[in-house]
Amino acid sequence: MPHRPIITLTTDFGTNDHFVGAVKGVILDIVPEAAIVDITHAIQAYDVLDGAIAISQTYSYFPTGTVHMVVVDPGVGTTRRAIIASSDGYHFVAPDNGVLSMVYAKEERIHVRHITSDHYFHQPVSSTFHGRDVFAPCAAYLAKLVDSHKFGEEIEDYVKFAAPRPKPNGENKLRAVVLKVDRFGNLITNVTPEDAPALFSRKSAFKIVVGNKEITTIRAAYAEGAQGEVFGILGSMGFLEIVANRAPAAQITGAGKGAEVSILLGGAAAAGKGA
Amino acid sequence: MPHRPIITLTTDFGTNDHFVGAVKGVILDIVPEAAIVDITHAIQAYDVLDGAIAISQTYSYFPTGTVHMVVVDPGVGTTRRAIIASSDGYHFVAPDNGVLSMVYAKEERIHVRHITSDHYFHQPVSSTFHGRDVFAPCAAYLAKLVDSHKFGEEIEDYVKFAAPRPKPNGENKLRAVVLKVDRFGNLITNVTPEDAPALFSRKSAFKIVVGNKEITTIRAAYAEGAQGEVFGILGSMGFLEIVANRAPAAQITGAGKGAEVSILLGGAAAAGKGA
Amino acid sequence: MPHRPIITLTTDFGTNDHFVGAVKGVILDIVPEAAIVDITHAIQAYDVLDGAIAISQTYSYFPTGTVHMVVVDPGVGTTRRAIIASSDGYHFVAPDNGVLSMVYAKEERIHVRHITSDHYFHQPVSSTFHGRDVFAPCAAYLAKLVDSHKFGEEIEDYVKFAAPRPKPNGENKLRAVVLKVDRFGNLITNVTPEDAPALFSRKSAFKIVVGNKEITTIRAAYAEGAQGEVFGILGSMGFLEIVANRAPAAQITGAGKGAEVSILLGGAAAAGKGA
Repeated sequence: MPHRPIITLTTDFGTNDHFVGAVKGVILDIVPEAAIVDITHAIQAYDVLDGAIAISQTYSYFPTGTVHMVVVDPGVGTTRRAIIASSDGYHFVAPDNGVLSMVYAKEERIHVRHITSDHYFHQPVSSTFHGRDVFAPCAAYLAKLVDSHKFGEEIEDYVKFAAPRPKPNGENKLRAVVLKVDRFGNLITNVTPEDAPALFSRKSAFKIVVGNKEITTIRAAYAEGAQGEVFGILGSMGFLEIVANRAPAAQITGAGKGAEVSILLGGAAAAGKGA
Repeated sequence: MPHRPIITLTTDFGTNDHFVGAVKGVILDIVPEAAIVDITHAIQAYDVLDGAIAISQTYSYFPTGTVHMVVVDPGVGTTRRAIIASSDGYHFVAPDNGVLSMVYAKEERIHVRHITSDHYFHQPVSSTFHGRDVFAPCAAYLAKLVDSHKFGEEIEDYVKFAAPRPKPNGENKLRAVVLKVDRFGNLITNVTPEDAPALFSRKSAFKIVVGNKEITTIRAAYAEGAQGEVFGILGSMGFLEIVANRAPAAQITGAGKGAEVSILLGGAAAAGKGA
Repeated sequence: MPHRPIITLTTDFGTNDHFVGAVKGVILDIVPEAAIVDITHAIQAYDVLDGAIAISQTYSYFPTGTVHMVVVDPGVGTTRRAIIASSDGYHFVAPDNGVLSMVYAKEERIHVRHITSDHYFHQPVSSTFHGRDVFAPCAAYLAKLVDSHKFGEEIEDYVKFAAPRPKPNGENKLRAVVLKVDRFGNLITNVTPEDAPALFSRKSAFKIVVGNKEITTIRAAYAEGAQGEVFGILGSMGFLEIVANRAPAAQITGAGKGAEVSILLGGAAAAGKGA
């Protein structure tokens, strides 16, 4: 089977305006046979971490050779660089503002280039919409198998931030955070099974405090929860989620994005309310 | 022309998270040449009837051979079955919770299989996101023309519910319901021309009571209505709709999804307010 | 490379219902190899000007031969005509209500035909959903390279409105308007550099009054603004935008779609508050 170019889009453009349409037009004008896939355009406006989470949770499901365009770009038109990051399997086209940080953390080998070859850009280049004029055409030419080294020099000092990790907070206590609230009102925390194996082993006591609720149960499926019960689950993103059965845990707990999550294990769980 | 695999998606995942992107990645990794079409991802969360309405209103417009994936799945991770339903023209991949009921009602011949061949699944299978790990890969392999009988045994006891139908409510009276409110604020009822021919024959008196309004007019086009007038129309879904010209009937009538709709025909219409 | 049919969709259908899915099904049944691209389905309901802006800002980025379907159609089911407008590069399929006005203004040569060949329609044709039954199949057959003259006779009296333009409002004063508010809360005005060169030359004084704010600065990038500052920018649509750095100017100014924008140049700017 011949190579089919696939380009994914992850942006904070929303879908109410014409922005995404213009991006797709530019891409198809260069590579009309491409499949363009929306990951989401509802990244919180200007929220680089939110974008980093979305692309890191999705890119690896796509076939090798897919080009991922990620545009959360509050610095558009300034001196922030445009980059291509290439792993063994994928290309990523993005502003150099850390939005690929969680990809960098997952990929062993990555090469990052500063895009300077402006003959690939859509002219004239506006100062406010590089999604259309810079990132889209570069993604399209990459999908068309133009070599990444033609776009600019490799750099080492690309912007990378550390994803928020749970922190010890006294003996047998962890202080974690709600990374995001999903469409169902589930609270996605930043706690992995490696951070707190006891939570998922079901062999020792624990307590999770989030918003106005104390949670002492981990279940395997949403539907196992009783009506109104808030409980934990190991979610599909690989993180502890605080959830309820057919109900929004965010609303029940009064907690949202950025809320603190206190994990108390063993004796700390028995001793009382944490944090 | 060679066969082009087409897969449609109808879910309650929303488009704000990465969920739909992950589903599409899994599909394209198996069948990169597929066209993936979003029917909607805004099915009301957990609302199997809402999903049943959406897919039943759409599937038959697609070319023969299309695979329709329908995931409204509050029971994910429990013992509820995953199924493939095959009619003469289409495959449907869904949880066995009745979300295909209105498809079953329209298709004369349908074969339903319980998906048990887990080597088709995306591993590891999470307990909370079978859209990505079970339904997407099965839809992809079906689109790739893998025989449906390879996925599991045929079953007869699949879950099916009866769509809500208008009920007689005394002589010349029907009690119906608002199935949904569409984007324009139109109230889609469950009344078909067969249920109440007199409504559409324009030969006899009738009265429709919904929310705080009495409706005595059926028109052929939205634009025929006077400003602020609420009236009936035979909508594109095949149901009586309660509408207004360039205005949301839902707001004007104060009625929403699930609201009662009283239909009074002939003498009952003249006699006064129904229900 | 063989011709790849591309069809774009610009509608006010929203994405919460099954409407867009049905449109795509009809198209793919006729031309399964088509790429269907959503420009947006969030045109304000019934708002022909909003649709005109969206398509005029997007169509020219697509490859020559693309078919653009634009359906904002409050007159569906009445005698308003369905049309095909063909420029040198594109076909447009739309109701004849002016939604293509800003395309007409940009294209030197355009031929408009009244669609009367109803054997291209999807039967039965509903009176409320011509997107599915009339425009979608016509767009599909055009994408399949059916000659536009087969759909109906050319007409000259198609509906065209003038886009709102800034108006002189005394010496060195312009009265302009907010065309739309975008996803970031930026206020897109109808002022181009040609309308007020002094705004962008940075050589003379000016004042822009919108909502409760007076603006005296034009910047080149959003990120150049101080926190809370409202300023002007030449946006990617070719219009003056009133914006803020990582904040919604619409909220800060209290102005929205349709709000008046007063531009005071030279002496008028010095003399005081305009309008």
